Amino acid sequence: MKAEIITIGDELLLGQVIDTNSSWLGQQLNQLGIQVHYKSALPDDKEAILDGLRHAKERSNIIIITGGLGPTKDDITKNTLCDFFETRLVQNEKVLEWVTSIFKMRNLPMLESNNQQAMLPENSRVLWNRNGTAPGMWFLEDGKVFISMPGVPFEMKTIFEEEVVPLLKETFSFPSIVHRTILTSSIGESFLANKISHIEDALPSHIKLAYLPSVGMVRLRFSAYGENTEQLNLELQPIIDALYETIGTYIYGEGEDNLAQVVGMLLKGKGKTIGTAESCTGGYMAHMITLNSGSSSYFKGSIISYSNEVKINQLGVDPKIIETYGAVSEDCVKAMAEGARMVLKTDYSIAASGIAGPDGGTQEKPVGTVWIAISTPNQTVAKRLNLGDNRERTIQRTAIQALDTLRKILLEETE
Amino acid sequence: MKAEIITIGDELLLGQVIDTNSSWLGQQLNQLGIQVHYKSALPDDKEAILDGLRHAKERSNIIIITGGLGPTKDDITKNTLCDFFETRLVQNEKVLEWVTSIFKMRNLPMLESNNQQAMLPENSRVLWNRNGTAPGMWFLEDGKVFISMPGVPFEMKTIFEEEVVPLLKETFSFPSIVHRTILTSSIGESFLANKISHIEDALPSHIKLAYLPSVGMVRLRFSAYGENTEQLNLELQPIIDALYETIGTYIYGEGEDNLAQVVGMLLKGKGKTIGTAESCTGGYMAHMITLNSGSSSYFKGSIISYSNEVKINQLGVDPKIIETYGAVSEDCVKAMAEGARMVLKTDYSIAASGIAGPDGGTQEKPVGTVWIAISTPNQTVAKRLNLGDNRERTIQRTAIQALDTLRKILLEETE
Repeated sequence: MKAEIITIGDELLLGQVIDTNSSWLGQQLNQLGIQVHYKSALPDDKEAILDGLRHAKERSNIIIITGGLGPTKDDITKNTLCDFFETRLVQNEKVLEWVTSIFKMRNLPMLESNNQQAMLPENSRVLWNRNGTAPGMWFLEDGKVFISMPGVPFEMKTIFEEEVVPLLKETFSFPSIVHRTILTSSIGESFLANKISHIEDALPSHIKLAYLPSVGMVRLRFSAYGENTEQLNLELQPIIDALYETIGTYIYGEGEDNLAQVVGMLLKGKGKTIGTAESCTGGYMAHMITLNSGSSSYFKGSIISYSNEVKINQLGVDPKIIETYGAVSEDCVKAMAEGARMVLKTDYSIAASGIAGPDGGTQEKPVGTVWIAISTPNQTVAKRLNLGDNRERTIQRTAIQALDTLRKILLEETE
Repeated sequence: MKAEIITIGDELLLGQVIDTNSSWLGQQLNQLGIQVHYKSALPDDKEAILDGLRHAKERSNIIIITGGLGPTKDDITKNTLCDFFETRLVQNEKVLEWVTSIFKMRNLPMLESNNQQAMLPENSRVLWNRNGTAPGMWFLEDGKVFISMPGVPFEMKTIFEEEVVPLLKETFSFPSIVHRTILTSSIGESFLANKISHIEDALPSHIKLAYLPSVGMVRLRFSAYGENTEQLNLELQPIIDALYETIGTYIYGEGEDNLAQVVGMLLKGKGKTIGTAESCTGGYMAHMITLNSGSSSYFKGSIISYSNEVKINQLGVDPKIIETYGAVSEDCVKAMAEGARMVLKTDYSIAASGIAGPDGGTQEKPVGTVWIAISTPNQTVAKRLNLGDNRERTIQRTAIQALDTLRKILLEETE
């Protein structure tokens, strides 16, 4: 079962947009047991797209196309698909109703170009887009499947998960693949590989391990290939057990868990609340927490104290601490964390103060120097981090380290 | 002059790595006036690479290949290029010296696999890699150029800038391309297209317009193709002027500007400061502002008031307002904005309170209902938004709308 991905849009070839869709699709297809053996990016040009579709049909069983479905003139994918399949556009009443309702809800007039979104190739099956006005399309011809989806990532992802995956499973039969993804934090890829080499070396040939690093985290994905899902699960379990035994403290979750949510569930389980006091992270720690729905049951709020004035007035940091040690110091970050607990009336708090850069570094405190603190009903602890000179990365890593440190403290308290 | 990019590596097709090299290369080539008309990703497989090279030679004048040059067994690009050009590997003394010196410097033994790095195809010209052990290669055959570079981004970039660009300029003469990218906010793609259709329809055939939408924003990219850069700039200017005349209030910047930074520069220009009061956005507005270096000169801090208690205690919102109208209401969000200005002692503030979902909606205030407020030294204004049921999107759109509303107020004040 060979799949390929075609992304459409001049912006991809001009390099104005980084294509994240095709790597996401590659991962998803792989998890279904479908191998992506070719990817291409094509311009918004009819002949180029027709040529690409012809070659794809020769090479692959499943052809996934993203982009070029918007309402403007440079979006030509739909008409080109009509030409390719020698079919015509017909109005789809359900889609028209949906598009109309969206514009009504937003109190916006319906334009002729929006009407066009409900015109679909006669031989296609609609892939419902509940996040936008451009539906996806499914074509089956000569045993080959063509799937066309919008390029907007969150629209594409929902269509793929809710519409495409069930249809693919209906249309083809796939071998069994079982994936277990273990999420780790606060340890680098090569150190991790070193610690678990005995587990990796002992894997049977039908079980593969992939390291998937991202900022401050490494995901370990085990993939077992075979005939029987239950059997594969049984084989994976002792491997996962051995992993927990070896690197358990670095593991914060599995699958789709996220770190802030794991911390939130620990707090909720104890019936406790949290707040943050943020300088260099500028609200990012609060953002990570509040991205999770239901966070209002444990998160009360934050003081973002970017200026010393706010540190002193809103968090009650003693001005002498800032004078003596500076705002990026153990004493200051501890005072911030304690202040947040007190003024926000929470059980726990996390705080961060540092030099995110690119300016503001000194010999003693270079760019990337960050202090984090965790305050609990029993103690306040602080840690110094050295995170390099990429501003965005330093903000992200600080938040991850602070949340992960709190996670470990919450677990220790329970033991 | 048609160029294409081939990236090699299983990890790209599995989606384990997001390809940023090809978009960077697309930008660089475009600036030289070279149009990338095709991109493909190929697996670490000899037949697939040979096939890809054959097709590329038919399609393009310049073929740029990245990846597969490392010292491990899955790196087969160099040997496959030898097969393709029917040549053999010969030892390059200067490269061998360089590789040996690197290992000596790092106090590491020289392995047989490292020796291999100095073996290069007989018909190739070496592209010096001063950041690593794998040199790039330049092939010229039948008037077509093949360029092979390592996939490690910082190695590839240096080789391209220092070695490839001068050689390309020596080998070919290029046409000119000029791009102007205009950034808009708070208006959808189809409405924008409608408003500027007279401008779009009047574009000469050598000037193209592309719509590049992302959450809450649309970028308009004009690309002019011709012989003379100065002439193209002169031709673009009246088009850009017409755009400002037609949709000026929606335009927040050009090129690489970002909205929060544009707002920040307006504040800085006036010598004024800002803070935020955030409920549903949970710190994201502060995060957008503080992602920009130098923001500490105009951003003082925020109160993230996720609970009513924090709204009352830290922002001074009258409990009666919350009792009477609820936390998601015009009165509450105005009180939050005014409270933030007062307690954070800033000149301006933005505030948001809403139902990000997926829970918490009612008939009267469904999920996606958000109130934003802007408080200035002269006035406090509020606006109700209806943003749908995707939590993350709602948070992002709220922040963008609030910042864009403040931007317009700051501009009006100046007039």
